[in-house]
Amino acid sequence: MSPPPVSDVVVLSGGLDSTVCLALAAREAGRPALALTFDYGQRHRVELERAAAVAREAGAEQLVVRLNAEAWGGSALTDPAIEVPSGGGEGLPATYVPGRNIIFLAVALGVAEAKGADRVWIGVNALDYSGYPDCRPPLIKAMRHVARVGQQRGVEGRPVEIRAPLQHLSKADIVRLGLEVGAPLRLTWSCYRGGPAPCGSCDACLLRAKGFAEAGAPDPSLE
Amino acid sequence: MSPPPVSDVVVLSGGLDSTVCLALAAREAGRPALALTFDYGQRHRVELERAAAVAREAGAEQLVVRLNAEAWGGSALTDPAIEVPSGGGEGLPATYVPGRNIIFLAVALGVAEAKGADRVWIGVNALDYSGYPDCRPPLIKAMRHVARVGQQRGVEGRPVEIRAPLQHLSKADIVRLGLEVGAPLRLTWSCYRGGPAPCGSCDACLLRAKGFAEAGAPDPSLE
Repeated sequence: MSPPPVSDVVVLSGGLDSTVCLALAAREAGRPALALTFDYGQRHRVELERAAAVAREAGAEQLVVRLNAEAWGGSALTDPAIEVPSGGGEGLPATYVPGRNIIFLAVALGVAEAKGADRVWIGVNALDYSGYPDCRPPLIKAMRHVARVGQQRGVEGRPVEIRAPLQHLSKADIVRLGLEVGAPLRLTWSCYRGGPAPCGSCDACLLRAKGFAEAGAPDPSLE
Repeated sequence: MSPPPVSDVVVLSGGLDSTVCLALAAREAGRPALALTFDYGQRHRVELERAAAVAREAGAEQLVVRLNAEAWGGSALTDPAIEVPSGGGEGLPATYVPGRNIIFLAVALGVAEAKGADRVWIGVNALDYSGYPDCRPPLIKAMRHVARVGQQRGVEGRPVEIRAPLQHLSKADIVRLGLEVGAPLRLTWSCYRGGPAPCGSCDACLLRAKGFAEAGAPDPSLE
């Protein structure tokens, strides 16, 4: 019997964390995962180019899911009328996209079930993050329950498994892990702003720089 | 202080159940809800026209969310290569769209949070249905938990509320309720096939006919 065409679905944004996830999934399964990238009207379109480049380098098939989230707004990442804040502010930043990872996981579960894949991977991180509620372990746990009760595979007792291997790692640990598994970190993009080069001042740039500094490695995307 | 622009978001497919939900939400809030319609590549495009007509008749603003679910396939409702079965078969029918209501609720929660709405309504029905796991009460309960732990409003202790008022009603009860609240049932569409008129033989047509018959009312969409 031939194996199903895909065993793993990885949510791939083109950022550091999801790129490391893609490499982890391939290492475990012994073959490339399906890379699931969301085009949700994000202002920083460079992210989408980087995601495509990462998937290509990994030899992974890429499925681009289009979702017109700009139609309902509510975030600096999709609404040009809301400014991207510089890092270090208090409270939930304007870059929060309401329910983003809930939607990403819901779609990833649907794709996995349709394709016969056993696992969904997402690079959420609860330690070095911007305080988004949809990046925290309780949400991952809640979505695992959704997979058990809301999908046909789940009610048959073999739910799609949700893996979030970076949940409890620091950004430095993620950098180290990425270097260890040979993830193409030079192709990744983290900046919330869509300029030709990373701005160096938004939350995402600050966290990334801190991660590479603490891991004692240069950021290959800046070379 | 003026009220927020929207208090309720209703998932509106243009079918019987969601149209009744839209009327129930408006009755409770005393003003029209935001109608949230998904264009997910469904073959029966007439559904989208009916949803727009229902929203217009209700005086409701409509937000159409586009999602290219046809790109990942797996259902007779999005993939022309899979035939829509006639009703009465055993097991999960080919019309199951993997994770559809999970995705719809995830997006509806995001829209509600972005718009400052307090409630999301969905017309799922656990009694007269085709056996889809994403229509059952455990999924609704699981998604309520997702709203509590995965959204900013939820972690602040005022989660978006998910209403599924038709969950335990028979199709006949839904017809009676729709007539009582003055929902525009004549505009609704249930057939899984996209012909110019309902086919009368798919699961959706059979359930609908049974509902009107048991309610002792003629189906105004057939007049």
